[in-house]
Amino acid sequence: MYNYKMIISYDGGNHNGWQAQGNTKNTIQNVLENSIEVVLGEKVETFASGRTDKGVHAIGQVVNFKIGKKFVIKDFLTNINKELPTSIAVLEVSEAEERFHSRLNVKQKTYVYKVLNNKIHDPLRRNLCLFVDEPLDIELMKRAMTLFVGKHDFIGFSSMKKTKKSTERTMFEASIEEINDEIHFTFTSDGFLYNQIRIMMGCVLAIGQKKMQLNNIETVLLAKDRQLAGITVAPMGLYLKEVQY
Amino acid sequence: MYNYKMIISYDGGNHNGWQAQGNTKNTIQNVLENSIEVVLGEKVETFASGRTDKGVHAIGQVVNFKIGKKFVIKDFLTNINKELPTSIAVLEVSEAEERFHSRLNVKQKTYVYKVLNNKIHDPLRRNLCLFVDEPLDIELMKRAMTLFVGKHDFIGFSSMKKTKKSTERTMFEASIEEINDEIHFTFTSDGFLYNQIRIMMGCVLAIGQKKMQLNNIETVLLAKDRQLAGITVAPMGLYLKEVQY
Repeated sequence: MYNYKMIISYDGGNHNGWQAQGNTKNTIQNVLENSIEVVLGEKVETFASGRTDKGVHAIGQVVNFKIGKKFVIKDFLTNINKELPTSIAVLEVSEAEERFHSRLNVKQKTYVYKVLNNKIHDPLRRNLCLFVDEPLDIELMKRAMTLFVGKHDFIGFSSMKKTKKSTERTMFEASIEEINDEIHFTFTSDGFLYNQIRIMMGCVLAIGQKKMQLNNIETVLLAKDRQLAGITVAPMGLYLKEVQY
Repeated sequence: MYNYKMIISYDGGNHNGWQAQGNTKNTIQNVLENSIEVVLGEKVETFASGRTDKGVHAIGQVVNFKIGKKFVIKDFLTNINKELPTSIAVLEVSEAEERFHSRLNVKQKTYVYKVLNNKIHDPLRRNLCLFVDEPLDIELMKRAMTLFVGKHDFIGFSSMKKTKKSTERTMFEASIEEINDEIHFTFTSDGFLYNQIRIMMGCVLAIGQKKMQLNNIETVLLAKDRQLAGITVAPMGLYLKEVQY
């Protein structure tokens, strides 16, 4: 079997999340596997670095699949992008080692959450950013972000049920960048729990709006209690940016 | 009667064009007038600087309406933006002279057409740019654009039927700017005929791809024959940027 690795991008607002399960239609996995079958004439199973929920975008999702025959990468890249709807693009394809697995071999992942902070919303970015019209205290939010860095049990910032598996993760980076009227929140970790970034962002934005105390982040980390965290923010501001192996 | 002038922005892909006519639902005019009625308690008629077609965006459309009572502009701006769907935003509101009419008083309008010129399309800009994967000769397109400047009968670049009204317009600016992988084509004129920019763009892009001769622009202007021009490009790259009075 040959193993191929792809870097893909998608508009998550147009699909029912990554995973094909049961009768869920129009998932990214479904659409991608159908397009690969049309182009290569073989039904394959694709593996992503992780599932993304409905509405979450990707600019650097990594996907691998195994297939019984070699193919010409350049032609495949042209043909798959012609076959896919415009809401999904394959950016790069390469042959990978037989053992390579997009999810199992992940070392680090980087997500960005984009907030449009302005008095008036922008219709042309309504599916690309979370719109927040209240003032946000950048310095307070920067301090809040540093509290995530390091090794912590993030279960309080997750909508996962408690599990025997470890929910400790190491956050390598949690930073903020202002780009015109957008604020980009970047998180790099060896792994993220279910809904983790959207719940962390609920707290960071509440702190930026002075609706929550800064020390609440440590409280949630120590108490491991989802109820003490804030809301789960909307998915449309979230982008899977990069996966490192 | 009091006369109010608004600058509005919208995602044209989410609406059936500007104009409310017959049974057409979800036009920008319909949605805007309904929201104004909710906020101000009075049904008004809105006038735009011009109709935009389904799919065409605006970042600076000008709209005026008359109403029997004054209102507090700051409160109106807050309330109308809460009432409107996220695909439409009111950016500015001011009181205008009683005689001011958004369409009849136009001196110049500026439109921008955005092209994403890259080997691979970008799912996150699929509704914001026209995607062209073939190479485009920028210098040739710049020369093509200069041929539109000046006073011409643009009927050959329009899908209007012939009419007794003058179809002469003066193009003040037709320029190109490269911004990363996007090419922005800017047109400023005292008026545009129906589909004019989308048909001019069909020719400019065909020239950039060397599928059409540069001198064909002059041929179309002189022959006044739509059949000699190229295709009408898709609406999602077109933005009404600014209206001058």
